[in-house]
Amino acid sequence: MRIAFQGEIGAFSEEATLALYPGATPLATVSFDEVFRQVADGSVDRGVIPIENTLFGSVHVNYDLLRAYDLVIEGEWYLRIRHNLMALSGATLPAIRRVLSHPQALGQCQAFLKEHLAHAEPAPVYDTAGAAKMVAENGDLTEAAIASERAAETYGLTILARGVESNHQNYTRFLGLVRRDAWERRPVDGPARTSIVYTMRENVPGALFKSLAVFALRDIDLFKIESRPVVGSPGNYLFYLDLGGDAETPPLRQALAHLTEISAEVRVLGSYLKADIG
Amino acid sequence: MRIAFQGEIGAFSEEATLALYPGATPLATVSFDEVFRQVADGSVDRGVIPIENTLFGSVHVNYDLLRAYDLVIEGEWYLRIRHNLMALSGATLPAIRRVLSHPQALGQCQAFLKEHLAHAEPAPVYDTAGAAKMVAENGDLTEAAIASERAAETYGLTILARGVESNHQNYTRFLGLVRRDAWERRPVDGPARTSIVYTMRENVPGALFKSLAVFALRDIDLFKIESRPVVGSPGNYLFYLDLGGDAETPPLRQALAHLTEISAEVRVLGSYLKADIG
Repeated sequence: MRIAFQGEIGAFSEEATLALYPGATPLATVSFDEVFRQVADGSVDRGVIPIENTLFGSVHVNYDLLRAYDLVIEGEWYLRIRHNLMALSGATLPAIRRVLSHPQALGQCQAFLKEHLAHAEPAPVYDTAGAAKMVAENGDLTEAAIASERAAETYGLTILARGVESNHQNYTRFLGLVRRDAWERRPVDGPARTSIVYTMRENVPGALFKSLAVFALRDIDLFKIESRPVVGSPGNYLFYLDLGGDAETPPLRQALAHLTEISAEVRVLGSYLKADIG
Repeated sequence: MRIAFQGEIGAFSEEATLALYPGATPLATVSFDEVFRQVADGSVDRGVIPIENTLFGSVHVNYDLLRAYDLVIEGEWYLRIRHNLMALSGATLPAIRRVLSHPQALGQCQAFLKEHLAHAEPAPVYDTAGAAKMVAENGDLTEAAIASERAAETYGLTILARGVESNHQNYTRFLGLVRRDAWERRPVDGPARTSIVYTMRENVPGALFKSLAVFALRDIDLFKIESRPVVGSPGNYLFYLDLGGDAETPPLRQALAHLTEISAEVRVLGSYLKADIG
C-alpha cells in the first residue's frame, strides 16, 4: 500500500502513517491538498492527515478538505509528539552552540534549553525533520536539532537527550483516508467513533442546542464539538462533531436520520475504531 | 502604552497590536508564554495574542495560557492575512529564482507561484516577516519573499504582486489582554461578546446539552463553541464558548449564574466590543 502524507521524511506524520498502516510505503507530499488529491485520483491507496493537536488545536484546513473531497475516514491515531535533542555522533551537550528546530518545538523545549543549553543559540527553521536533516548535512559538531526519534534514525543522528519538551501532554490526532469507491464498508470491530459535519437551516439562538438534542435524547457520547462560521454567511455555522457509535448502527443511525430532518446539510465523514490517547 | 506580541517586527501580530491599540509601542517577544508573563508581572501594559485563524483553527496553547494566567480579555480584532510578493527595488518577476516564506504561506500561494513563478524555487523559512528580513539582508535581486505589506515597509522591500493567496478568506482573530488589577471595568459600549471556559461536574452524555440550555432558554447568541478533552481525566471536557452580551448585564448575567450552579468550574475570560471579520 502506498500512503501519502504531508511533510519531510522523518516527520511525525510519517510515523503516524506507519502506525495506522503497518508495513505500508509512506510517500512525502508538499501539502495537505496534495494528499487529498492523490487519494482522490488514485495515485496512492490511502492518505494520512493531522486533524488536531492537544496544544495547538484543530487543523481547520483539513476539515475544509474533508468537506471538499468525498473521501472516507477509516481510522484514527493519537501520536505523542516527543521532542529529542540530537546531534552528530561525537557531539556533546557543552559543545553545542546552535539548536535548530521549528519555532513551536523550540518554544515547547524552552525550559530544557534554558537549563542545559543557555550557552547555545536557538535557530528557528520551518520543520523539525528538516532541522535534523540540516544538522546531518552541515556536519558541524556544535549544532543540534530538536526533532522526533524517527528523524534521528532517518538522518543518522545521535540522541543527546530524550523527551525534552516541558508539556508531555502533546498529542496529534491523525486520520487515515480512503477513496469512497475503494472503501470496504464493514461494521467497526470494537468501540466506534463517527465524525460528522453539519449546518442548521435556521440562524437562531438555540439552533445548536436543538441539534444536540438528537444525540442527548439517545444517550450518545459526544467526544468533540467545534463550530466554525461559514465565511460570507454571517450567523451561519458549521458544526464538527465526533460521536460514539457507528453511523449505520442504532442508536446513532436514527439520531443521524433525525438530524437530517432538522438541518440544512449533514455529511458523515466516516465511522472507525476509536483510538485512545497515549 | 507598551504592548507585548509574539513574533518578529513586521509580523501580522504587530499589525494587529496597532489595530487594537492605535499609537501604542509594540514590543516583540519570543513566545506566547512570554507575552502573558510580561503582562502579568507589569513589564508591559497590554498583550496581544492570536486566538484562531479561519483556515488553521484555534491556538489552543493560548486558551491554556488564558486559564493559567488571571488576565482579562478587553478587546478583539480580526486581521485579514493578505500575502504579497516582495523583493528588492529593481527586481522583476521573471528574474526571481527563489521565493522565501513560511511553508503555510507558500502553500496558500501555490496557484500564484505555479502560474507566475514556475521557474523559481520555494524556500521554506520559519516566519513570513523573517523571510522579508532575509531578502533585505541578502541583497540578491533574484530572491523574493511572501509576507505582509507591513513587512515590506519594515524591511524596505518593493511589492511585486499583492494578495497572491488563493483563499482570500484568511483571517486571524487577535485578543487584547490586560492585568485584572489594571483593568477598568465598564459596560461594553456597543454590541458585546463574552468568552468563557467551563467544565461540567458529571461525565455523562448530554452534559453539554444541559449546559447549553442555560443560554438557549434565554435566547443568547452563541458565536463559537469548542470542546477539549481534559488530558489525564478521560471523558472530562473543557468547553470554550463565545456568547452574545456582557457578563454583567442580563440575560447573560443570570445565564452564567445558572451555569455556575450546574458546572464544576466557570471562568469568565472577559467581555468586550464585538469585532466583525474584515
